[in-house]
Amino acid sequence: MVDVADVATVKSALREQRIETPSWAFANSGTRFKVFPQRGVPRTAEEKIADAATVHRFTGVAPSVALHIPWDRVPDFRALRSYAGDLGVEIGAINTNVFQDEDYKLGSVTNPDAGVRRKAVDHLLEAIGIMQVTGSRDLKLWFSDGINYPGQDDLRDRQDRLAAALREAYDGLGDGQRMLLEYKLFEPAFYATDVPDWGTSFAHCVELGEQATVCIDTGHHAPGTNIEFIVAFLLRAGKLGAFDFNSRFYADDDLMAGAADPFQLFRIMYEIVRGGALDPAYGIRFMLDQCHNIEMKIPAIIRSVMNVQEATAKALLVDRDALRSAQQAGDVLGANAVLMDAYNTDVRPLLAEVREDAGLDPDPIAAYRRSGYQERIETERIDGQQAGWGA
Amino acid sequence: MVDVADVATVKSALREQRIETPSWAFANSGTRFKVFPQRGVPRTAEEKIADAATVHRFTGVAPSVALHIPWDRVPDFRALRSYAGDLGVEIGAINTNVFQDEDYKLGSVTNPDAGVRRKAVDHLLEAIGIMQVTGSRDLKLWFSDGINYPGQDDLRDRQDRLAAALREAYDGLGDGQRMLLEYKLFEPAFYATDVPDWGTSFAHCVELGEQATVCIDTGHHAPGTNIEFIVAFLLRAGKLGAFDFNSRFYADDDLMAGAADPFQLFRIMYEIVRGGALDPAYGIRFMLDQCHNIEMKIPAIIRSVMNVQEATAKALLVDRDALRSAQQAGDVLGANAVLMDAYNTDVRPLLAEVREDAGLDPDPIAAYRRSGYQERIETERIDGQQAGWGA
Amino acid sequence: MVDVADVATVKSALREQRIETPSWAFANSGTRFKVFPQRGVPRTAEEKIADAATVHRFTGVAPSVALHIPWDRVPDFRALRSYAGDLGVEIGAINTNVFQDEDYKLGSVTNPDAGVRRKAVDHLLEAIGIMQVTGSRDLKLWFSDGINYPGQDDLRDRQDRLAAALREAYDGLGDGQRMLLEYKLFEPAFYATDVPDWGTSFAHCVELGEQATVCIDTGHHAPGTNIEFIVAFLLRAGKLGAFDFNSRFYADDDLMAGAADPFQLFRIMYEIVRGGALDPAYGIRFMLDQCHNIEMKIPAIIRSVMNVQEATAKALLVDRDALRSAQQAGDVLGANAVLMDAYNTDVRPLLAEVREDAGLDPDPIAAYRRSGYQERIETERIDGQQAGWGA
Amino acid sequence: MVDVADVATVKSALREQRIETPSWAFANSGTRFKVFPQRGVPRTAEEKIADAATVHRFTGVAPSVALHIPWDRVPDFRALRSYAGDLGVEIGAINTNVFQDEDYKLGSVTNPDAGVRRKAVDHLLEAIGIMQVTGSRDLKLWFSDGINYPGQDDLRDRQDRLAAALREAYDGLGDGQRMLLEYKLFEPAFYATDVPDWGTSFAHCVELGEQATVCIDTGHHAPGTNIEFIVAFLLRAGKLGAFDFNSRFYADDDLMAGAADPFQLFRIMYEIVRGGALDPAYGIRFMLDQCHNIEMKIPAIIRSVMNVQEATAKALLVDRDALRSAQQAGDVLGANAVLMDAYNTDVRPLLAEVREDAGLDPDPIAAYRRSGYQERIETERIDGQQAGWGA
Repeated sequence: MVDVADVATVKSALREQRIETPSWAFANSGTRFKVFPQRGVPRTAEEKIADAATVHRFTGVAPSVALHIPWDRVPDFRALRSYAGDLGVEIGAINTNVFQDEDYKLGSVTNPDAGVRRKAVDHLLEAIGIMQVTGSRDLKLWFSDGINYPGQDDLRDRQDRLAAALREAYDGLGDGQRMLLEYKLFEPAFYATDVPDWGTSFAHCVELGEQATVCIDTGHHAPGTNIEFIVAFLLRAGKLGAFDFNSRFYADDDLMAGAADPFQLFRIMYEIVRGGALDPAYGIRFMLDQCHNIEMKIPAIIRSVMNVQEATAKALLVDRDALRSAQQAGDVLGANAVLMDAYNTDVRPLLAEVREDAGLDPDPIAAYRRSGYQERIETERIDGQQAGWGA
Repeated sequence: MVDVADVATVKSALREQRIETPSWAFANSGTRFKVFPQRGVPRTAEEKIADAATVHRFTGVAPSVALHIPWDRVPDFRALRSYAGDLGVEIGAINTNVFQDEDYKLGSVTNPDAGVRRKAVDHLLEAIGIMQVTGSRDLKLWFSDGINYPGQDDLRDRQDRLAAALREAYDGLGDGQRMLLEYKLFEPAFYATDVPDWGTSFAHCVELGEQATVCIDTGHHAPGTNIEFIVAFLLRAGKLGAFDFNSRFYADDDLMAGAADPFQLFRIMYEIVRGGALDPAYGIRFMLDQCHNIEMKIPAIIRSVMNVQEATAKALLVDRDALRSAQQAGDVLGANAVLMDAYNTDVRPLLAEVREDAGLDPDPIAAYRRSGYQERIETERIDGQQAGWGA
Repeated sequence: MVDVADVATVKSALREQRIETPSWAFANSGTRFKVFPQRGVPRTAEEKIADAATVHRFTGVAPSVALHIPWDRVPDFRALRSYAGDLGVEIGAINTNVFQDEDYKLGSVTNPDAGVRRKAVDHLLEAIGIMQVTGSRDLKLWFSDGINYPGQDDLRDRQDRLAAALREAYDGLGDGQRMLLEYKLFEPAFYATDVPDWGTSFAHCVELGEQATVCIDTGHHAPGTNIEFIVAFLLRAGKLGAFDFNSRFYADDDLMAGAADPFQLFRIMYEIVRGGALDPAYGIRFMLDQCHNIEMKIPAIIRSVMNVQEATAKALLVDRDALRSAQQAGDVLGANAVLMDAYNTDVRPLLAEVREDAGLDPDPIAAYRRSGYQERIETERIDGQQAGWGA
Repeated sequence: MVDVADVATVKSALREQRIETPSWAFANSGTRFKVFPQRGVPRTAEEKIADAATVHRFTGVAPSVALHIPWDRVPDFRALRSYAGDLGVEIGAINTNVFQDEDYKLGSVTNPDAGVRRKAVDHLLEAIGIMQVTGSRDLKLWFSDGINYPGQDDLRDRQDRLAAALREAYDGLGDGQRMLLEYKLFEPAFYATDVPDWGTSFAHCVELGEQATVCIDTGHHAPGTNIEFIVAFLLRAGKLGAFDFNSRFYADDDLMAGAADPFQLFRIMYEIVRGGALDPAYGIRFMLDQCHNIEMKIPAIIRSVMNVQEATAKALLVDRDALRSAQQAGDVLGANAVLMDAYNTDVRPLLAEVREDAGLDPDPIAAYRRSGYQERIETERIDGQQAGWGA
């Protein structure tokens, strides 16, 4: 057990932590083989926000919800913002979607057709307009753009088109607004993706300017990629803007954060703590981006939030003085042991205290189950069209 | 260039080669992000068979089409068989589908619920019944069964349930019928799949008996897996029953066979030739199993057939005497050079001759384009529901 | 925290647990780029055994040491056995080495040259002879055999040769002796390995008979392989014989067990516990097989033993009734939570108690450091040739 | 077959192509398990250069040889340069080696110990000094630096140290000299490598300035990485400086270029051709970096050179007008077919002509075998110490 950490400081950091939930994770999702619908799933942007607010009510650290346009497009975003505020949450990052229209079959901003590119960029600009209404700081860009076959399109031309589109969107950002550029190795493109790795995202962000930063989705890497290295590198370069947390055993499995490799999540959070980037004032947006294909959605998101909290608590408990001493001394086993000592600590009692100090139930999952919320939504959300990835 | 091969023998083997097309590859498909519909896509099992017959008309080596139940369920399978026969093709393997019903959310034959397992096994038995009508020899089983989270279900219990289901289906096979058991590393299950690798399929097939053999889908392996080794091993053990050909750069990308790694396809076909297993009399079913998400479907399938033919031609051209001599002598470079010599040969002229000898156009793609078939289906197949993976 | 587990039973199981250390892990090792020698490294088989006995002295659960022939060849194995006994340990599995002789450049038991194969098989038989003197039950076989280039040798012929060699060695086993057949994806062979995966090892073992079982080295798999699935499958089939524990981020990195993915090690040990296979009477040999290239060797091995113990303790703490209930109910989140509840428990206090109950220091690493053993060996083992992988 | 390409232009490009051989590939190499020595292997830097000159004599496109310091350290580099010149080759890139000294156990330029870092940087500066004597333009840096265990050292501090070392070396470069910064995912470091991917190398090179560019070793990536994408990206950014060609099925296998995935090598060379970067005047250094562990070294290197030539010839034969038209039209299959048409062409006759036009034997391997060179070196190079990776 780590004695040296100032427990009060640790608790304070945990109380201040902020994790953003994604509106689409409350909706139905699935694989290409099948979407299994669930009861009580939201039918509107408002119902997604209500679910997000519920997660915040039980965890206390999830006070914002990311939207996905056009999935969450409403006639009056001002009203939506107000609705969210009434429920105790705010609207977070605005995610663009340029992959579900027929026109985007061969790409959006990198499509060989200039007309399609124009349409895609206009969507990005529309999203910026929405941000001004919702009060969102961050425009999050993920492009499914890529090609399935060698030769299908010119890899370098597509970079030129990408750069042009990013520039136009960047120039449309207002003061205090940021662009988060996400990368992904593959899927839905199966030969070459136009923003496949952090290096590509980083290079474009550097070219764009200070308001452009990289978004790391923890499921978007090649096997064996050391994600915490990327975190450390981007923090050093001042270019880490956001996370999409989830976990994976194979590809972009979008399982609950911390479910597949909790030790990895801890190592990532350690680099965040070590880089002084946990504090909300630092500006990194810690989002979840998950698909609860077979498990109940709201409890899965609560559990994911808790998993991130536990990894963070362990990271905060690392005895950094002892670690530094062992590292400087070249004591391989000693340094590793300091890190593992924190990881092996059971931080659940500590987090229970943090919650109780904040007036929350120490067990958010149990409290949610007792609350009757699940039964209510299953009863009330009967008519209408359930929301799904494409709805 | 390989001189020693008897060209007539090679041509004869290429004329006799048989490649089965999958009915579902003519239908719409996509990723979890989006299915892009195409014009002229079939709306019925009959239209799929018509498309398959078209592929055979231009290639001459694709005289059978695999069906997927329930996607291709019709009121009268006898009539369907007859319809196919009139078009010059026969019905091949019957593929079961126990992954698209709500009941199968947590598995089919390995579901913890006995009622669901019963339903799934009944579907397998139904498929055997269909085989008796369609004259199909092979029951192809792919199970999406698996779990997404550690602990979700008991890995070993699921094997017991799997074994019981396979046994019941196996016992339902008639004389001369076979079971092909496919394996897949992941997707749609993201933590553990119940038949994840060839070893699992092999062990169950050995336990079941002689009529059960392994089906290798070339896209279903972990990165770095040497597929031709598996081919050689299963041939030696007498347990290779079928292929699902396709290609991949990342996961189960389902691209056209030979599109991602033509050298690998050649190495696979070399093991087939070396094992004496190319001859249709040997009994291996060489199927395609692909998703043409963004490219035109019929030409993509023609191209895939041609890619398999080219890999086969190269495999047939390997100077096996020279290869054996170099191998025996421990001449690493010499042995590799013999193999590469065949691979580096341009076999397209040879295949053009094979086609012309068979009264076919030497360029099947061009002939298809000139035939007007594509324009006709795009005009005629307007009303009704296009077929898709789930339709 | 798990309440239902009978703590006394858990402690008892932990006291009875047996982990075998490998003689070669005490010796120098490295990568192809460099072997960094360490002070105090053993120069003889006896000194390796003394180090192994030291690990046992501080952990209480490592009472046997595996030998590697010819690295540990001595004139009088009876005397060696007696020496080990005097130090409180016994000689465990005998590992053969048919990869470091010039003759084995193109393979040992699968070499195209019959003379080399003869030599290799004779070595296996020699090892069986040694086992009879040392009282070892298990012959452990790892073959580096494979090829670097397509075509270099015939994949299937090599399987024939492998089968013949295994048969001869198997037939040489005495009553109560076993053969453990290890598999490995790659390295040192870089195109095809002759025993690349569990399926290959399993198939040969089934063919050989009851005394042949599979050895799982946790670092020998393709990326994404679910090792605990293999454990569960082999236990069900009665064919799991042994583990070589180590950990890896990339390839066969041979890091300390539990260092790279402690959650995976827990999942593996859970399948062991669930299968009733932890008890030494079950017969599975739990070995370490690691390379401490840059960290101090004895403390690294102690730490590895402790890591396996911690994973085991967590596995024993799983509330299996609750788990089964949740699994049967299809409660995905609930079942996962039961498993994670055990994993998230800090079991170090429990293991400290187990050690104290056995009269050991609760902190084996600290006790070792205080013992003066390291200083003594660094002082005494000056002259002579340090042992290394090749020495 | 591609008709439109101007064959004369293609031949001219192939005649002008330059491929650099590595001095160390002529020496003994192996895996951590065993180095199998070969007869006739060079014992001195001069003998390595003689072998390199022999490769050039038979291929005509390998007129330079890269050195590795200290492996190739000689008392008089001016004499060595002169010796090389007399044999018809020049000295190419100077490769530094800061991984084989005991001091570098925990890193060289990123070592926590400032003294070790000083020593490592001094070695880099020494290499620059050697370049001035040998007339080499390029300083090639590969660092084995990294850590094996989480926590062993601070990831971000190591980047600071790396940046400082690179800066000092960069500032030491003379006019017209360049720094090539290589990256590698893992090995010998097994948890985190300090320059693990192209993004890291790129970011440092951008920070350093125009004389710093990225070196792509084709074996140094995570599974699934699209290398030709990186090539296209770096060319667009003006930051591609060099290649280390080799091939791999699994990790950094260092097999002959083109042996594992000839289609990938073709795609890489296509991006080079498309980017106008094949011309030696463009400045990219195309090097081999391979380990011929079991095959004869000189013929293996000749074969590798030929494999790169064949991939290049195919890349030059791509009908780029037709490709662009198909790409612009969104004709997925058509565009892919244009690329494959070139790939499927047998370019060996064309290359035979190129060689004959240049007064070379059309079959370099056969010519080498007939030349008696191999017999001579096996006879003459008897006494003394054979060169190996560490010698």
